[in-house]
Amino acid sequence: MEHVDRKKQAVGEKAAEYIQDGMLVGLGSGTTMYYMLQALGDRVKKGLHIRGVPSSVKTEKWANEFGIPLTDFSEVDQLDIAIDGADEIDPAFNLIKGGGGSLLREKIVDMAADRFIVVADDRKQVDRLGAFPLPIEVVQFGWQLTKKNIEALGCSTVLREEDGQVFITNNDNYILDCQFEAIHEPKKLHEQLKQLLGVVETGLFFDIVDDVLIGRDDGVEVLKR
Amino acid sequence: MEHVDRKKQAVGEKAAEYIQDGMLVGLGSGTTMYYMLQALGDRVKKGLHIRGVPSSVKTEKWANEFGIPLTDFSEVDQLDIAIDGADEIDPAFNLIKGGGGSLLREKIVDMAADRFIVVADDRKQVDRLGAFPLPIEVVQFGWQLTKKNIEALGCSTVLREEDGQVFITNNDNYILDCQFEAIHEPKKLHEQLKQLLGVVETGLFFDIVDDVLIGRDDGVEVLKR
Repeated sequence: MEHVDRKKQAVGEKAAEYIQDGMLVGLGSGTTMYYMLQALGDRVKKGLHIRGVPSSVKTEKWANEFGIPLTDFSEVDQLDIAIDGADEIDPAFNLIKGGGGSLLREKIVDMAADRFIVVADDRKQVDRLGAFPLPIEVVQFGWQLTKKNIEALGCSTVLREEDGQVFITNNDNYILDCQFEAIHEPKKLHEQLKQLLGVVETGLFFDIVDDVLIGRDDGVEVLKR
Repeated sequence: MEHVDRKKQAVGEKAAEYIQDGMLVGLGSGTTMYYMLQALGDRVKKGLHIRGVPSSVKTEKWANEFGIPLTDFSEVDQLDIAIDGADEIDPAFNLIKGGGGSLLREKIVDMAADRFIVVADDRKQVDRLGAFPLPIEVVQFGWQLTKKNIEALGCSTVLREEDGQVFITNNDNYILDCQFEAIHEPKKLHEQLKQLLGVVETGLFFDIVDDVLIGRDDGVEVLKR
């Protein structure tokens, strides 16, 4: 991280406090998680015993940098806690995630946890989801047909690129960023999208968030379900 | 093909006759398709103009061997006809596919076609689907959790291997072969499975088959919807 974002740093450090000795921890992705991992690494150096399951290649790299021991789903099938960021959070704790491109692994990790804590700054709070384009992970083969079927549900889509190349997820898929304007029924929309041939997963998360930590100019606000 | 299977050869050759000049053709996968492609290649050499969209890397290789011109979904978004094999066919033309590991690409190709013709020999006809283990394509990451969620729907599963290694699909996923014994409602089961986190696609095909060509000892039987 070249530039320190004070809000994200504060909320990341606060989130690290939720992790207790002996826990299996789902490690989300994104810049706020960088600060969480840094703070968690400091606690590990002081003797905290935990193991983390990373939700992206980048998080795995950061965890290794900070000396956080890792494991995976070949060794564990349930986590005590997961901490992860979000691109939008509505008042019912529905989320849009996937701006960073790791929505699928994040959802697998977050859903495997007994307790799921979202970290974000106050710019991510919205009354209704959908201003942030919904990321949808799709199979490469025939993605053009999948795009048409997604657009038939009422959105415009853009195939995500990075550095002038088509972006490829950690699972070797593409991402379509889908502008729905306003998403009125996140769960229903997710189910419709997930049913489509070629759709692997959507960035809509619902029914799994326990606590939300919001970084504000005046500190960290804790929201409970 | 080292050993010529007369039933599959007869039905493959018969299927090739359905293809007319100018058509865009979805090319399925599997051994029966080998014979179809061979017969189609002969017609191309004699002047038939068609373009095919292959549903697997192996089919692409065979098509190249037989001189069949190919295209893909970056150039076309609808096909005139698709011809593909199946592992089981029930009386309502529901299918189990994916024994060869290409179920996802096959489904994309087969569903893109105005007319879909299934080729098989009479050993594939069943009263009810499910004796053949249902192949389900799943994301590699967290596949152990996906397996548990699939098994909760009432089956036992085996992670597919090939030559002592975990089998990896053309889309970089795994295959779970799922023994449900009898599948009473193929469409409903598909929808339940497709909704699961980590499930990319199932080998259940329904509502898309137009004709079925069955290779028998005494010739090829044509079944129409």
